[in-house]
Amino acid sequence: MEFLVRIQVDLPPSMPEAERQELLGREALKGREYIEAGALRRIWRIPGRVANFSLYEAQDATELHALLSELPLWPWISADVQALAVHPLESTTANV
Amino acid sequence: MEFLVRIQVDLPPSMPEAERQELLGREALKGREYIEAGALRRIWRIPGRVANFSLYEAQDATELHALLSELPLWPWISADVQALAVHPLESTTANV
Amino acid sequence: MEFLVRIQVDLPPSMPEAERQELLGREALKGREYIEAGALRRIWRIPGRVANFSLYEAQDATELHALLSELPLWPWISADVQALAVHPLESTTANV
Amino acid sequence: MEFLVRIQVDLPPSMPEAERQELLGREALKGREYIEAGALRRIWRIPGRVANFSLYEAQDATELHALLSELPLWPWISADVQALAVHPLESTTANV
Amino acid sequence: MEFLVRIQVDLPPSMPEAERQELLGREALKGREYIEAGALRRIWRIPGRVANFSLYEAQDATELHALLSELPLWPWISADVQALAVHPLESTTANV
Amino acid sequence: MEFLVRIQVDLPPSMPEAERQELLGREALKGREYIEAGALRRIWRIPGRVANFSLYEAQDATELHALLSELPLWPWISADVQALAVHPLESTTANV
Amino acid sequence: MEFLVRIQVDLPPSMPEAERQELLGREALKGREYIEAGALRRIWRIPGRVANFSLYEAQDATELHALLSELPLWPWISADVQALAVHPLESTTANV
Amino acid sequence: MEFLVRIQVDLPPSMPEAERQELLGREALKGREYIEAGALRRIWRIPGRVANFSLYEAQDATELHALLSELPLWPWISADVQALAVHPLESTTANV
Amino acid sequence: MEFLVRIQVDLPPSMPEAERQELLGREALKGREYIEAGALRRIWRIPGRVANFSLYEAQDATELHALLSELPLWPWISADVQALAVHPLESTTANV
Amino acid sequence: MEFLVRIQVDLPPSMPEAERQELLGREALKGREYIEAGALRRIWRIPGRVANFSLYEAQDATELHALLSELPLWPWISADVQALAVHPLESTTANV
Repeated sequence: MEFLVRIQVDLPPSMPEAERQELLGREALKGREYIEAGALRRIWRIPGRVANFSLYEAQDATELHALLSELPLWPWISADVQALAVHPLESTTANV
Repeated sequence: MEFLVRIQVDLPPSMPEAERQELLGREALKGREYIEAGALRRIWRIPGRVANFSLYEAQDATELHALLSELPLWPWISADVQALAVHPLESTTANV
Repeated sequence: MEFLVRIQVDLPPSMPEAERQELLGREALKGREYIEAGALRRIWRIPGRVANFSLYEAQDATELHALLSELPLWPWISADVQALAVHPLESTTANV
Repeated sequence: MEFLVRIQVDLPPSMPEAERQELLGREALKGREYIEAGALRRIWRIPGRVANFSLYEAQDATELHALLSELPLWPWISADVQALAVHPLESTTANV
Repeated sequence: MEFLVRIQVDLPPSMPEAERQELLGREALKGREYIEAGALRRIWRIPGRVANFSLYEAQDATELHALLSELPLWPWISADVQALAVHPLESTTANV
Repeated sequence: MEFLVRIQVDLPPSMPEAERQELLGREALKGREYIEAGALRRIWRIPGRVANFSLYEAQDATELHALLSELPLWPWISADVQALAVHPLESTTANV
Repeated sequence: MEFLVRIQVDLPPSMPEAERQELLGREALKGREYIEAGALRRIWRIPGRVANFSLYEAQDATELHALLSELPLWPWISADVQALAVHPLESTTANV
Repeated sequence: MEFLVRIQVDLPPSMPEAERQELLGREALKGREYIEAGALRRIWRIPGRVANFSLYEAQDATELHALLSELPLWPWISADVQALAVHPLESTTANV
Repeated sequence: MEFLVRIQVDLPPSMPEAERQELLGREALKGREYIEAGALRRIWRIPGRVANFSLYEAQDATELHALLSELPLWPWISADVQALAVHPLESTTANV
Repeated sequence: MEFLVRIQVDLPPSMPEAERQELLGREALKGREYIEAGALRRIWRIPGRVANFSLYEAQDATELHALLSELPLWPWISADVQALAVHPLESTTANV
């Protein structure tokens, strides 16, 4: 099942640059791990913000929450999760 | 360039069923045409609503508007368009 | 997987009472069918509104959408769907 | 009488991990106490957030407030409370 | 238990004046009946709107919903219900 | 003239408990003083929040502001004020 | 006591032009009557909308509601009323 | 002085196509007239909507309102007007 | 040209009282200066908040911004500016 | 392709004035660089706020994000980006 997730990151401007870079580095590693595992299917930046839209594949919301809460940036993240249903245009019958 | 589009359809409950089915049929045909042309990359239903999230590929917002305004359901649609930037996890360097 | 669904019903005040009663009667039948099938686990009225909160069990958002879109009141409904994750207090380990 | 409660927890990222764990441990204990007492009937995580939906049984809003304000996380919580009415599908007559 | 209810009435401007007056007359009768029964404790107009704040006393949200849905204006009403807890200033101990 | 006031209190979780108790104690004293003077007619807790609805009687908005700004918790309060008009059900003629 | 009132007028585009002009003519007459009586102190158009901000002087919210509900456009109006307190810069002591 | 105006057009889907085309034709003529007069400096479509952002030059809000209310689509328009101040980057000194 | 400005002041509760009084004193002086200069025509407190509505007269939004950004409280202010058009009731012809 | 960007700057009032001036100076330099490069076509202050509307020209949202995230004030900025489509009034055919 797929989920559309909007993630906003709110790192305080006062965070030391080294800590910030280390965090972002770990976040990128985790992201690649999720991509390779097939959990993170797509990810886009929202221009003008430290935020992204991500397309996750997970068995259910419980697995999705586990994936999100293991992100290194988790304490600074607020995420909006939209459960997605299959659209007929991507299966066999047609409707809007 | 990719765009995330949230489309809400508001057909009046009083619309005759035949007209409704004819419209939805034409909408599905148009959707398939866009998929084959590579303009509509993904589409998901929003559960509980006559609404969807669509991932469009278009040269710019002008081309995107042309695609959306040619949908048979256009007079009953309101769409929210989010321009998407490439995320480093999908290119070469890493960052959130 | 469970979903919390907030359903708002907007029947026009001008709908003939007989049509209204027939619709509501079919809606109640469908609701009982869902309860017996284990799909509709709980349902509460929102006081002061023709609206309810429902707790659905479905395999995924696609199955949930199918259930909701087969409700007789579907053309007059707008539903907000919240995917729910298992809380540790209902499994084995503890956390908020 | 039942209440649907949406609880958002906002612990500052700067809180020491030990203090955080101690708090969460006490919160879990209190939650189990409420479950055993029949006050907390169901609880779900909201995926992507340190937040939950809880279904409380209390005599009235005064008792509910007492329950919530005794939670160890109370100073960091904001809760939205929705009073719930019995739905006819769960009693004897049928209506939406 | 007390509830604060905000009621907005949306009668269409096209409703014939006689029908409107008859409805409002029945609504007033029902309101007086609720006042005499002790269910409607206070009611205030919201200036500039066909809307009011009402203070209801009811055993629970189920009884409150029954009271509201029997109002003659019910099909044109949307109501927001706030469950109220006793404040210590009105009981015996003090707190905000 | 009556005013419905929604008061939200935002004391920082880091405030020392003694300071907090002293403040709340003074707030309660002030509240009782307003009740005795007939300025604060009713007050209810909003369950799940450090917030209340208060019903004030004041000559006008200027007097009301003076009452609110003398509350010991004033620096941590945000208040929404709704001016209330007399409803015909509480005077002599009937209308919604 | 002064009130700041934001009035939005929603006349249906289908209203016959003659009816519309007659209504607007009566509305203007009523407005001039209120100005002469000292009840309507200032009125400004909100550019781009059939809406205005008005500054009313009334004894209390009850009198204000009476003034507003006697406007010929009342059935098509929604008004937001803000009770205003005297600012020290307009009396004798100084504060923000 | 410049104004940024967001215009949303809500033509009913039931409007006859001929009437719609005639209206849009007159609207386009009026738009060109404003461009030539220097009143309408820029105009952009908002993709996915029958809406636009326009940059107007007018002496003040009164002149701007006159321009907008003379648009043929005026009865179906709702406009949000933002008054704009000169930014130092476009004058002589620098600041954000 | 007139502007309606809603100003919200957010001084931190932790600001030393002396600093606060000195700031408010300078703010009041500036306010009187603007009144005498004819720039600040009216000012009202919003009851229950450290906020006000102000009616400014300025040549355009650039001059208005200059006035607001020179207020001593500027770093703690957020202001919403509404450009106002002359209403026909205050000029010569009549309309809503 | 053009983008309308609303930028809100939230510098903490506690930031030392020298640091603030240095930041704003670098921001102005960057802004001029973008103007000369044709990336920043117009910029307006939003009166009453440390905020602006900017009109950017960029190849796509990825290039736009790069421009915005290189602004010296980036850590204190939140930006809302609206992708703009060409309006027929600025090309060759006419429509709203």
